[in-house]
Amino acid sequence: MIDLIADMIKKSRGDSPAWQQLITGVGDDCAVWRESGKPQLAKVDCQIEGVHFDLKLISWEDLGWRALAVNLSDIAAMGGLPRYALVSLGLPLDSEVEDVLSLYRGLLQLAEKSGTAVVGGNLAGSPHLFVDVNLIGETLHPQGEYLSRYRAQPGDLIAVTGWLGSSAAGRKILEQGRYQAQYAELKQAFARPEPRLAEGRLLLEAGVSTGLDISDGLLSDLGHICRESRVQARLYLEKLPVLAEVKELFGERAYELALSGGEDYQLLFTAQQSVMDKIKDRTGYPVTIIGEITQASKPSISVLDARGKLYRPYKTGWDHFKRQ
Amino acid sequence: MIDLIADMIKKSRGDSPAWQQLITGVGDDCAVWRESGKPQLAKVDCQIEGVHFDLKLISWEDLGWRALAVNLSDIAAMGGLPRYALVSLGLPLDSEVEDVLSLYRGLLQLAEKSGTAVVGGNLAGSPHLFVDVNLIGETLHPQGEYLSRYRAQPGDLIAVTGWLGSSAAGRKILEQGRYQAQYAELKQAFARPEPRLAEGRLLLEAGVSTGLDISDGLLSDLGHICRESRVQARLYLEKLPVLAEVKELFGERAYELALSGGEDYQLLFTAQQSVMDKIKDRTGYPVTIIGEITQASKPSISVLDARGKLYRPYKTGWDHFKRQ
Repeated sequence: MIDLIADMIKKSRGDSPAWQQLITGVGDDCAVWRESGKPQLAKVDCQIEGVHFDLKLISWEDLGWRALAVNLSDIAAMGGLPRYALVSLGLPLDSEVEDVLSLYRGLLQLAEKSGTAVVGGNLAGSPHLFVDVNLIGETLHPQGEYLSRYRAQPGDLIAVTGWLGSSAAGRKILEQGRYQAQYAELKQAFARPEPRLAEGRLLLEAGVSTGLDISDGLLSDLGHICRESRVQARLYLEKLPVLAEVKELFGERAYELALSGGEDYQLLFTAQQSVMDKIKDRTGYPVTIIGEITQASKPSISVLDARGKLYRPYKTGWDHFKRQ
Repeated sequence: MIDLIADMIKKSRGDSPAWQQLITGVGDDCAVWRESGKPQLAKVDCQIEGVHFDLKLISWEDLGWRALAVNLSDIAAMGGLPRYALVSLGLPLDSEVEDVLSLYRGLLQLAEKSGTAVVGGNLAGSPHLFVDVNLIGETLHPQGEYLSRYRAQPGDLIAVTGWLGSSAAGRKILEQGRYQAQYAELKQAFARPEPRLAEGRLLLEAGVSTGLDISDGLLSDLGHICRESRVQARLYLEKLPVLAEVKELFGERAYELALSGGEDYQLLFTAQQSVMDKIKDRTGYPVTIIGEITQASKPSISVLDARGKLYRPYKTGWDHFKRQ
């Protein structure tokens, strides 16, 4: 359905100034257009109760944070700087004022932290709770560059920021009622993901051109790069950065969470060794090389285990239409 | 609740460049900020099934049109030009692909007509159907002016574009199963409102500074102007522009629809007589003077009937939390 809609939109392309200044429309992490020479970014993402969140697992304050975080992460994925947010809230009739204010409290905490100005919104009665956030940003790169998905090349290394599978692990221990204080980092990764804004800008400055954020899961998001760059990717299972707690809690399954758990909101990118070296020198946040891009007649991903044998992942992504 | 949220947002105001360039945040029809000297406008508005629309009354194609129209109307209300739209769709699992494509067809028809580029979006499974549209625009006024709500002055005349109550009349005859071909204009006003973009820009060019669009109903929206400009308004009932069909169908109630039916998406504005004369010379679309702004110790609206007697409206607005 998404492809059919994207096709319709592309065919409707007109010649108004807005279309003429458009650089990237439907399909990338953000829309990009030029305004007085500067690339502007825009993104919308929605959190729907029962689909994207469960208020038994996270608080209203967490929900507000998350709703903004998932959008900021898309701006980070372009190496951009967030500017303005508009918040559209669908609110059941029996919502408590205090809960709604908590939601805004969480959202505004992250807005302040990231320099985002919340400048508008909409509040509507709705049978179901949802929070839709629209974010407008820009890139500060002097040549107007931004990270995209289609420029990975054979010989590039594949790297990620931070840890993989922590968010999915956090969600699972909350769902299973196994949460204890020692797992605070996992809960945090799930309930209050930190969009990697500074890292996104650093990647762009260091010369990275291909990157995105891991929202659907490593395999699913790396799949976008492979398809759009027409390359193959090789991943090394034992190189995936997985926290010790996740391995303790989930054993072998920890790598499945890292491959396809989703909602990590870390950055996934590819670059030559020399660029990777530059990044490692500059960042205070972990960056791990997890594989490499190879030539391919057909875009695909292979995962190798510690013995160099092909590993068959249990699943490869996250279904947008599947409930939690 | 809206006031409490607006307060929280105002208190969270930071000193990032985004905040420094902000001109108008939460509260007006659109957010406004300056980008390389040019005012940028942004607005989000949502259509939720069972609250804002009923697919027994309008088609999926109408829904797509309406979802964009209500946002374009806010851009029109500032005298702006629409540029980019992002569409966030919450879609029940059993939605038909053909219906969703129809929705986009309607939306893209109006996008093309208005020069708006649809550049992004989100599609999520949802227990309930909703369409949230985020719109980014700009004003072309050389001094970066735009229409706002707080500059009405005693002595100003009050005027509206087009007809009032047509949309509410259209909705009622559809609800009551009384629709016939001769009422096509009323159905159109309800199902496919035409945002008054050209008229909004013309008002701004002619020197109007106070205006907004009528979404909640004439009295409710005029109330915004009175409160924010600290003035009183006097309306003349028999001057309200109401189509003959609406009077035939609804008799005396026709004026109630004009006063508080809502969803007209016409422009309501105030200006001196000399400015009104300029507008009447230039526009090809009806503009009707319906009253005047007077001095007031307390903001209020009075409605006078044909005999100059005070008329008591049945209701004064549209409750966002009330279902259709």
